Amino acid sequence: MTGRSPVKRGYVRPLNFRDGVVDMGHGAGGRASAQLIEELFVAAFDNPWLRQGNDGAAFSPELKPGERMVMATDAHVVSPLFFPGGDIGSLSVHGTLNDVAMGGARPLYLSASFIIEEGFALADLKRIVESMGRASRDAGVPIITGDTKVVERGSGDGVFISTTGIGIIPNGVDTGGHRARPGDAILVSGSIGEHGVAIMSKREGLTFETEILSDSAALHGLVAQMLAVAPGLRVLRDPTRGGLATTLNEIAGQSGVGMLLDEAAIPVQPQVEAACELLGLDPLYIANEGKLIAICAEEDAQPLLDCMRLNPLGEHAVRIGTVLEDAHGFVQMQTRFGGRRVVDWLSGEQLPRIC
Amino acid sequence: MTGRSPVKRGYVRPLNFRDGVVDMGHGAGGRASAQLIEELFVAAFDNPWLRQGNDGAAFSPELKPGERMVMATDAHVVSPLFFPGGDIGSLSVHGTLNDVAMGGARPLYLSASFIIEEGFALADLKRIVESMGRASRDAGVPIITGDTKVVERGSGDGVFISTTGIGIIPNGVDTGGHRARPGDAILVSGSIGEHGVAIMSKREGLTFETEILSDSAALHGLVAQMLAVAPGLRVLRDPTRGGLATTLNEIAGQSGVGMLLDEAAIPVQPQVEAACELLGLDPLYIANEGKLIAICAEEDAQPLLDCMRLNPLGEHAVRIGTVLEDAHGFVQMQTRFGGRRVVDWLSGEQLPRIC
Repeated sequence: MTGRSPVKRGYVRPLNFRDGVVDMGHGAGGRASAQLIEELFVAAFDNPWLRQGNDGAAFSPELKPGERMVMATDAHVVSPLFFPGGDIGSLSVHGTLNDVAMGGARPLYLSASFIIEEGFALADLKRIVESMGRASRDAGVPIITGDTKVVERGSGDGVFISTTGIGIIPNGVDTGGHRARPGDAILVSGSIGEHGVAIMSKREGLTFETEILSDSAALHGLVAQMLAVAPGLRVLRDPTRGGLATTLNEIAGQSGVGMLLDEAAIPVQPQVEAACELLGLDPLYIANEGKLIAICAEEDAQPLLDCMRLNPLGEHAVRIGTVLEDAHGFVQMQTRFGGRRVVDWLSGEQLPRIC
Repeated sequence: MTGRSPVKRGYVRPLNFRDGVVDMGHGAGGRASAQLIEELFVAAFDNPWLRQGNDGAAFSPELKPGERMVMATDAHVVSPLFFPGGDIGSLSVHGTLNDVAMGGARPLYLSASFIIEEGFALADLKRIVESMGRASRDAGVPIITGDTKVVERGSGDGVFISTTGIGIIPNGVDTGGHRARPGDAILVSGSIGEHGVAIMSKREGLTFETEILSDSAALHGLVAQMLAVAPGLRVLRDPTRGGLATTLNEIAGQSGVGMLLDEAAIPVQPQVEAACELLGLDPLYIANEGKLIAICAEEDAQPLLDCMRLNPLGEHAVRIGTVLEDAHGFVQMQTRFGGRRVVDWLSGEQLPRIC
């Protein structure tokens, strides 16, 4: 948190987390900034790196010879800030951890930068930051450095959070999107569409018999188990914005292959299906925040599914298709009615500010 | 840029960088996002990591045994986006590189995440992203991964950019703020106040006979030269938000020492002094973006100053004070008129959205 040392000498009253608000001074880099960092961020993220109070955090990554590292970053602008199954705080931890994990890496550390709108309730900020702290502790990945800026009322929207993660890729692991080959199996770790539908339902004020919760979760534990079973796993990718359809199109493009999906095999919860019909959405294009796509050699498919199903985050893992030879990179789907159709990239803006 | 593979099959017209604007679709993660990434970000930042198009970037840091790493992050919300001597793009590269450099580290890589307001001119975005690309190339530190989000008109303010940097700290180097000791010399690499005054002048529509330019610059080259001369250098810190006064108070707090500054020795350009009088500002509290404070043992002071003055970014380096024993951590100043006064933390919000 850019080096703000403890608020000293008792000049200031403690922050009012009941009905206080963020003001421009909290972003000015002086005593008010230091107080916000000390009483909120350092308290919630509690770790020795932050307590050092320097502009960056130093660490020893214990890299074995030949091991590579990965760096990933995400800006989070989700609206509303609090939604069924999570909030912008936990999401900003999970989203970036998952990008690191999709690189096949064990995440080491996170950084976080906050852009807060003047007048934002300190109570809400505290709830968000504490949720981030919990998500980071649960994942075993500390937030070691950060930054806070404040913009005038009307120049932001509550709070935006950018997180960056770094991690270590074990020797021999390469899960980049260019590695899919014809004949490979396409697996998904569970049912799709929950995150986007949870956000949209909240935004539209819809209620369902069973509340739809975001699937927001950190997947690096699941990934580590999968790599132990199949270190040669070809591709990992989390189907966030743009959904399963767009993510598979990206991989098809990177690898120069086609894909054939089996519509009947793609898991969608009945209440998500119902909400999608109501909202005019296609679950194939809806963001997920706790699911992954794995592409692997045919012989790895069953061992991987067996392994994934032992983890609660992969218990509904299934195979949804096969990689084909196709220089045009088309993703096709065998429909429930027996026909075939092309599953294209998302065009337009199906769901704004979903993450 | 979160794994968007090339825009394929010729479906889309090239982006209109003359009079086009950013729309919500550019942040939705579908084809429009992919196009923005390919035609703007990958083109401007041009490097093999980004071209891989995965959600994170893999790299081999070539860490020698015992070497540590550093991670630093900054959100940039400067207003106006373009100012004399720089823009939010170059600033977002320099700001984070400097935080990495203040850790004593050689910067390796940067990530960048963009939060763009719907309706923002693509021409301005291009100018900013190209400026970032240039700053990154000039510094020799590539931007290897990133993310782009779009928020509705009125929920942002043009563009905000968060950058994160990582670097390697040479063995034996430790420049944390806790290492200042009584008797140490306090050096500054040049005149203070230019960045903040450049921004404020632009914002207030002031003009001066000589235009005041931001000092925005990447300092890691200077730092490497300084560490070659004095590897035992105690503290490095760049006096950004809160200015020289706040930064020295932070260090005094971390180290549990006092400081005595010599007002007459602190370099301020005459036009900055004049502007500060006009604007009612104190240069001691004004943000710098291309200056550093170094604290070192007495015997290292002269060799360090000699070395700094050989680099254009340190040519006006001077000694401005001495570290004292003081459990209360007061920073005091010998004034031009012979008295002494306490130089306190910035309180309030002297300059909002300065970086």
